[in-house]
Amino acid sequence: MAFKILSISVAATSLLALANAQTFQRLGGCPTFGCIFPPDQTDFLAGQYFDIRLEVHAPVNGSQANGGQPDPKFTFTIAKGGSPQNASTYFRVTEPALERWNFTWYEDLFARDSKTPSLVKVTAKAYRRVALYEAGEYTATLTYNNGTKTTASWLVRDLATVRRTKNIVLFIGDGMTSNMITAARLLAHKSINGRYQSKMQMDQFPVLGHQMTHSLDAFITDSANSATALYTGHKSTVNALGVYADSSKDPFDDPKVETIAEMFRRLTGGGVGIVSTAFIADATPAALTAHTRDRSQYGQVVDSYLNGITNYTWTNWTGPDVLFGGGAEQFIPGKTSYQGRDYYAAFAAKGYNIVLNNTSLQKATNNTKTLGIFSVFNMAKWLDRNVYTQNLIGNKDSPDGKKSSATDQPGLKQMTLKAIDILQARSSDKGWFLMSEAASIDKQMHTLDYDRALGELLELDDTIKATLAHLDALGTLNNTLVIVTADHGHGFDVMGSVDTKYLAAQTTDRSKRGAIGTYQNSGLSQYTDANSETGPMSNSSSHNNTSIRYTNGTFFPANWDPRYTLFSAIGADPDRRENYEVHKDGPRVPAVNITGFPSNDYYVDYKDAVSGFIVNGTLPVNDNQGVHSLTDVPVFARGPCQEMFGGVYNNIDIFFGMADCLGLARART
Amino acid sequence: MAFKILSISVAATSLLALANAQTFQRLGGCPTFGCIFPPDQTDFLAGQYFDIRLEVHAPVNGSQANGGQPDPKFTFTIAKGGSPQNASTYFRVTEPALERWNFTWYEDLFARDSKTPSLVKVTAKAYRRVALYEAGEYTATLTYNNGTKTTASWLVRDLATVRRTKNIVLFIGDGMTSNMITAARLLAHKSINGRYQSKMQMDQFPVLGHQMTHSLDAFITDSANSATALYTGHKSTVNALGVYADSSKDPFDDPKVETIAEMFRRLTGGGVGIVSTAFIADATPAALTAHTRDRSQYGQVVDSYLNGITNYTWTNWTGPDVLFGGGAEQFIPGKTSYQGRDYYAAFAAKGYNIVLNNTSLQKATNNTKTLGIFSVFNMAKWLDRNVYTQNLIGNKDSPDGKKSSATDQPGLKQMTLKAIDILQARSSDKGWFLMSEAASIDKQMHTLDYDRALGELLELDDTIKATLAHLDALGTLNNTLVIVTADHGHGFDVMGSVDTKYLAAQTTDRSKRGAIGTYQNSGLSQYTDANSETGPMSNSSSHNNTSIRYTNGTFFPANWDPRYTLFSAIGADPDRRENYEVHKDGPRVPAVNITGFPSNDYYVDYKDAVSGFIVNGTLPVNDNQGVHSLTDVPVFARGPCQEMFGGVYNNIDIFFGMADCLGLARART
Repeated sequence: MAFKILSISVAATSLLALANAQTFQRLGGCPTFGCIFPPDQTDFLAGQYFDIRLEVHAPVNGSQANGGQPDPKFTFTIAKGGSPQNASTYFRVTEPALERWNFTWYEDLFARDSKTPSLVKVTAKAYRRVALYEAGEYTATLTYNNGTKTTASWLVRDLATVRRTKNIVLFIGDGMTSNMITAARLLAHKSINGRYQSKMQMDQFPVLGHQMTHSLDAFITDSANSATALYTGHKSTVNALGVYADSSKDPFDDPKVETIAEMFRRLTGGGVGIVSTAFIADATPAALTAHTRDRSQYGQVVDSYLNGITNYTWTNWTGPDVLFGGGAEQFIPGKTSYQGRDYYAAFAAKGYNIVLNNTSLQKATNNTKTLGIFSVFNMAKWLDRNVYTQNLIGNKDSPDGKKSSATDQPGLKQMTLKAIDILQARSSDKGWFLMSEAASIDKQMHTLDYDRALGELLELDDTIKATLAHLDALGTLNNTLVIVTADHGHGFDVMGSVDTKYLAAQTTDRSKRGAIGTYQNSGLSQYTDANSETGPMSNSSSHNNTSIRYTNGTFFPANWDPRYTLFSAIGADPDRRENYEVHKDGPRVPAVNITGFPSNDYYVDYKDAVSGFIVNGTLPVNDNQGVHSLTDVPVFARGPCQEMFGGVYNNIDIFFGMADCLGLARART
Repeated sequence: MAFKILSISVAATSLLALANAQTFQRLGGCPTFGCIFPPDQTDFLAGQYFDIRLEVHAPVNGSQANGGQPDPKFTFTIAKGGSPQNASTYFRVTEPALERWNFTWYEDLFARDSKTPSLVKVTAKAYRRVALYEAGEYTATLTYNNGTKTTASWLVRDLATVRRTKNIVLFIGDGMTSNMITAARLLAHKSINGRYQSKMQMDQFPVLGHQMTHSLDAFITDSANSATALYTGHKSTVNALGVYADSSKDPFDDPKVETIAEMFRRLTGGGVGIVSTAFIADATPAALTAHTRDRSQYGQVVDSYLNGITNYTWTNWTGPDVLFGGGAEQFIPGKTSYQGRDYYAAFAAKGYNIVLNNTSLQKATNNTKTLGIFSVFNMAKWLDRNVYTQNLIGNKDSPDGKKSSATDQPGLKQMTLKAIDILQARSSDKGWFLMSEAASIDKQMHTLDYDRALGELLELDDTIKATLAHLDALGTLNNTLVIVTADHGHGFDVMGSVDTKYLAAQTTDRSKRGAIGTYQNSGLSQYTDANSETGPMSNSSSHNNTSIRYTNGTFFPANWDPRYTLFSAIGADPDRRENYEVHKDGPRVPAVNITGFPSNDYYVDYKDAVSGFIVNGTLPVNDNQGVHSLTDVPVFARGPCQEMFGGVYNNIDIFFGMADCLGLARART
């Protein structure tokens, strides 16, 4: 198809797509040949450090070709109401050096298949660590190619500088949607004739909101870019942590934005806690201190926790008070740690206590900053730690690298409560910010292991409940803003129930589907009844752990393996087999690679859900897992400033609400 | 498997399942051999009329067999604090006559397949049109079989009798979830670098809540039983309208509960309007006045709109002021109208204006009650009325029964605005209650026609916007509680984008899946751009209607047929083919019956989405459509009492909030 070649003036708020490139983009946030980052329509916090990246693109070939000579003499101005000033004058910095590079991209899937990339030559500059201090609207203008202009409208929000909360706890249920919360409630809370006898802790929060999760340049997001939005107020591109994505090869030169953790520490000296059930270099925790285009730079992520950003002058990050999670592989010296270093030693050298299991965690002194790494890779799931405990044996995931099994792992609750003790002991005067992530809701939804994912969600709810009680006992509940939200969703819901005994007894795929009960045939939840009939493959010695009962306020299923299970589904999947029974042997692997790297070709895992029926997927066949979805996700808030979090808004508004409540805006005229 | 046979005493709040019957139940809400309706854990509005049904079951055979002789001498008492009184004494009514019947049920799918039903003999009574007038807790006790007791704990809520709102508009997006609202926003509202330039009207409401939609006796609901919950505060069984489901054959003798429309009219004489885009006998409108175990009693539903309940002494329903929708087949005399009567004539005889198209609707006088029936069966979809208008021709759906095409149908907006005009003209002094349903969000999600469903949702949003403006112009916006919610959900979400041109060009199912773009490859919405490249099958003469543009505050897609479409999905489906292109020839039919009734066996519709790839379903093969899902659904509220609708609660709480706001409680000591 032909695209018009345009030399155009672009008005401040118009979006001009030179091409309808969709699957791929030349550069997200830059539809014209002149790129400004942060781009048009960006909001800022007064005083928040950020970098500016300018690029001028000259496509050499392809549908957008314009001669292939990027303008080295572009200029860039900032205006607020009055006349524009050159940025170097406005920000009182030296004019940055001109940079040049090339990159290639595919204009669509046909171009990718025929291996005909489009080449783009680039001239660029970066202004490092600037800030805007006046509330109001700014116009940033890039002038290039003999008078062509690209403008960006920037808004510095007019926020309070008065602090209203001492502490913030930000709980992130990774991938968690309202649909999943509804299902978790059904599994764990008894209902009589439609009336639930108890509620999820989340259900009891006074304020409910919805946040829109989409990326800067795509309507689906990942955990890196969505965490960036939650922690900085700036959306970005999938896979980016705390930066806008530029087109250079270097994943560390992209323009940065200061995070709430960095700003809070810089401006108040307060405490910062980071807790996750994922490997700790994973995106959701990483986005608090790392700044890179590429979330998979795990080594540098861990270095940034300890040392902050070292390749540029940036903020004055001095390390978190608490860092708990999995991911020992970035700490044990070797191929997967940064420059092969021993990061346990590096943290210890900077005064950290190091703990490697729950026993040590419980005994750790509260007045010392603490690193807790409890497994290699992601931590064990609640279901395996509490019900199918034999799955903890033989994993060789001990965080000391000695290949024994990490059988004494804390859960999210233990890590979160201890984090609060440490933060209170070290920083009750200045207050503290804690991020606690239930990471494996998402990870288990990705692998279609619905039971494990909902178990992680129930563990999050139990953690929230215990946290509120603990804050109350510490006398600081009324001084703490508690937010529970997600970063994005998955397309999960429950459409009925399954008679797993009947399903296993049928011999054809089509007749196995007859085991599904919809509408009135969905019946009641069998998970809350310790005496409900169990499934056809049940192993009475390893499940229905009698210690998991309805003890004082602890809500988990009494029976994870009833005969009648949930007819759960995710809208887009790889090929798989479904029998709707809990996976007792460990986390699910729904699809396997038949042909092997690099031409990944995933088919049903013949070892998974053997009694089930095959369902072919809709995702590309080189995807072995489910993917993220579009939906808005819930926000629950209680405490100071809770009212700011009601209604429907964008994920960046959560950053601005937290920053406002902490009084982090630094304005001056 | 063996079930224990139990003779038991049941304490007031315990749920004892004699069997784990799940796919089928002997009688929902009655797990023991003694059944009380309303059952244990029911909430009531003081002064609300209801019936009581008592049953004693004696299973003759099967796993629950207990001798097969149901006790004819059971007794039933009511207690509030003090000592129990016989119900006939408590309610000051004659002791009702004993009734007897039998019924059969299958204990599970194996029993159904082997055609071995279980027979149950029943003794029963019904107390008709009673009410409770004191707030507080009651204990209802059924004593049978020589001293066995079944008790029900009933709570009359302590609500205000002071009226705080003049009017209520209750918008119901049938089947609408937050996930769908997110997708509709993406289709119709422009976004620049992640910032939406406009918002859905729903997004702008001040209060956001979630309601739990489950049935009395199953965790999935249908529109009948969920509407019953919204309109009466009583959950029920799937397919039931305004009654609890008893086990008798007669679908009209089941115990009734008074609806908000009936109570509002009885107690205040205020106006009532009923508007839907469905056939008007469909469940969501029907549940306002009909009382039957079986939603498919369409003839009687329409009779009940006009005449109320005629087989029992009930409330004094005198007909709605406004009744607008489709479903001419229940009005045209013949096989599908009640007793073959002409209901146009019947309504006219009681003083109604009758209008059959939009032209007449606009001209109708506002001071006369009005019946508007605009099509046979469900009304036309927004997409066909506004974009693919050729699909309105040749449907033989004219509501006069003359088999011409109904090409002049109003939309939900026209019907709702006119309903408000009539209600204001007739009842501005006493106030009014209006229910307006966007029915085909659900109906089009059932048939996996994502575009049409989202078009109906956008029409609902446009209707809400116009309604608020109209109420404001009439000077009654601040006197009107406006609620927007759903009755239940579907498992819908969007997981990326599709290059429909690339998909159509591939020749195998597995390679067609390579057209899906996830995460960053989802790109931006092409629907808001009038100039975006169109899909491979586009017909430029019949789409991209240039009159559907971004006019003053009207938000619909500029291009329904771009090259890059949404990768939408519903979690549980019949077999179908997907190419993710809009269906230009009319509403989608995803699956067809190969073998024919009664052994329905649905396979992919070979005429649907011909360029797409086959995806086998997970639903039973005799299902040709998607089904309802578990998820909580959103509630948006503005106006008097709006604060009651924030947070997470049950669908019955919406009834109690509305009743409280209207001051409908009638207490006395």
